[in-house]
Amino acid sequence: MYKIAIDAMGGDHAPEAIVAGVLAARAHMPAVQFLLFGQADQIEPLLPDHNQIEVIHAEEVISMSEEPVKAVRRKQQSSLVLAAQAVKAGEADALFSAGNTGALLAAGIFIVGRMAGIDRPALMTTLPALDGPEHAFVMMDVGANAENRPAHLYQYGILGSFYAQTILQFEQPRVGLLNNGTEADKGDSLHKEAYQLLTQGAAAGYLNFIGNVEARDLLQGAAEIVVADGFSGNATLKAIEGTARAVLKILKTTLLDAGPREKIGAALLKPALREMAARFDYTQYGGAVVIGVKAPVVKAHGSVDAAAVTVALTQMETMLTSELTLKVQAFVTAHKAELAGQSQFEADEE
Amino acid sequence: MYKIAIDAMGGDHAPEAIVAGVLAARAHMPAVQFLLFGQADQIEPLLPDHNQIEVIHAEEVISMSEEPVKAVRRKQQSSLVLAAQAVKAGEADALFSAGNTGALLAAGIFIVGRMAGIDRPALMTTLPALDGPEHAFVMMDVGANAENRPAHLYQYGILGSFYAQTILQFEQPRVGLLNNGTEADKGDSLHKEAYQLLTQGAAAGYLNFIGNVEARDLLQGAAEIVVADGFSGNATLKAIEGTARAVLKILKTTLLDAGPREKIGAALLKPALREMAARFDYTQYGGAVVIGVKAPVVKAHGSVDAAAVTVALTQMETMLTSELTLKVQAFVTAHKAELAGQSQFEADEE
Repeated sequence: MYKIAIDAMGGDHAPEAIVAGVLAARAHMPAVQFLLFGQADQIEPLLPDHNQIEVIHAEEVISMSEEPVKAVRRKQQSSLVLAAQAVKAGEADALFSAGNTGALLAAGIFIVGRMAGIDRPALMTTLPALDGPEHAFVMMDVGANAENRPAHLYQYGILGSFYAQTILQFEQPRVGLLNNGTEADKGDSLHKEAYQLLTQGAAAGYLNFIGNVEARDLLQGAAEIVVADGFSGNATLKAIEGTARAVLKILKTTLLDAGPREKIGAALLKPALREMAARFDYTQYGGAVVIGVKAPVVKAHGSVDAAAVTVALTQMETMLTSELTLKVQAFVTAHKAELAGQSQFEADEE
Repeated sequence: MYKIAIDAMGGDHAPEAIVAGVLAARAHMPAVQFLLFGQADQIEPLLPDHNQIEVIHAEEVISMSEEPVKAVRRKQQSSLVLAAQAVKAGEADALFSAGNTGALLAAGIFIVGRMAGIDRPALMTTLPALDGPEHAFVMMDVGANAENRPAHLYQYGILGSFYAQTILQFEQPRVGLLNNGTEADKGDSLHKEAYQLLTQGAAAGYLNFIGNVEARDLLQGAAEIVVADGFSGNATLKAIEGTARAVLKILKTTLLDAGPREKIGAALLKPALREMAARFDYTQYGGAVVIGVKAPVVKAHGSVDAAAVTVALTQMETMLTSELTLKVQAFVTAHKAELAGQSQFEADEE
């Protein structure tokens, strides 16, 4: 029996959407127990029964706008902090929240804890790939860190490869380094050195590194694992989100503001356009993952509905039953020196 | 009489598209002389006469795929290098190319030369703004530099402000710093320090700095001047391009692969969709500008047609007649110490 600790108060539609998502999930997840952390008087009325569900009262709530690290430190009785502490104490196996992203990152890194041998856990997101051999790709770091060292990026390549193989079932997923050109010597010193480490990792057979990839080719499926520093990974993700939203918005305006001719056209196209929008809906791949910590920690978007919560919980069940964390930890422990950014040569010397 | 030196051999459709663009431009630019650098036997047959046009034969051509800095150094007889040298020698006032971007950057920076007081010229592009007070925004650096210091970003804010006011006729254009959050303390040390310098510049009345902006809000018109380091600016621009292309491609596939119902709908919507695609066509704003060099240097996209070449030449004429370079140079010379990144306090001490 796996236990998932859930911050029932995080997100724009909490606790309703969170609880509804849990109720839908439990039917096809008989081996999972859901621990709902939050304000009991708000949560209890939403529950028809307590099958597979336990409610743990939390006095405080961390809001979306609070300064993350401070909030986690000060609000010890918040639903998020209590849920994270349950994971730390071994009373739960995984942590879910749709609330403040920075606070979940802080709770994941400082309470659940970094995996031994991983220097800087990352935020990883899954996005659609239109023309690649697979239907999706993962990208990390998309914002846990403002600054990275080369070894961090190498570690992301390893972490992402495990996730893509184990959870997404991609065979031989390709790792690409997000850079400002595809040639091997591109980028600043951070990216040049990360390129070298990833090349060493590929030579050792740890991952399938294909070189640099550019932001314009990601959605076409340039790689299944896109390794980025937290600053430009964050900018790239937000540019993708903002542009997709802007184009779809213009499309909508174009159709609504147009004449009768266009209105008929739009009506005829409605189902096709809805299908198109669905391809860009990345809640279909579950939530963003805080990768490199000691247990599955997943963040759903603040605006998610119950269905998206269910998808994210299903993703977490797969992470638990596939023993992703154990597998990654075993690998990282066995290859600690190399992953710390030492060259192959230095590692061989030891 | 202004003279524009034109690399007639750069671009996918050169020299035909370049020459056709020049022929269309000269009709409404009577005060401009066009110096066409390139292979005379290819260019001459395209010219009905030589009014306002001079052809200067160049033996060599720099291709799109050549390593830029090496190519500029070695191919001294190339159309690009000869055109840049004409500007350096004072025989021409501005430089245009639709060829290899890196080579034009190298020619702009090393042959035309940096403006005194500007440490790192940048590549600046103009993109559409959907909901802002203006219809467009400029973003720089989008790839001239892989690494930047805080003072470079401050200089970009100044350079972009001059361009937006003088060329785009924006009043009080807002300068935003591309960062991984909108709060003042966001980002790595580079962006935190740049934020301080831009704030000082705003206090001194040199620019209208509004703080940090995020990549997801750019197309909505978050700022008229978006200051970015060359690495994340490059990733952001490419993510915007790639995403717009991907969404429009899916839209096309959705319409073409669909049933008869959708085909009728698509036919009815064709004019509206074409108008929508036109809003995302950024050749309407001219080419990318190498900003911070001693003369107007403009890069059109390699795939441009004659019409886009004409737009870019019109943009260059505006840069020349408005005396943009002189105005910027006067400002930079008068505020050299501050722009070098010294704090207001240190500058006052001098």
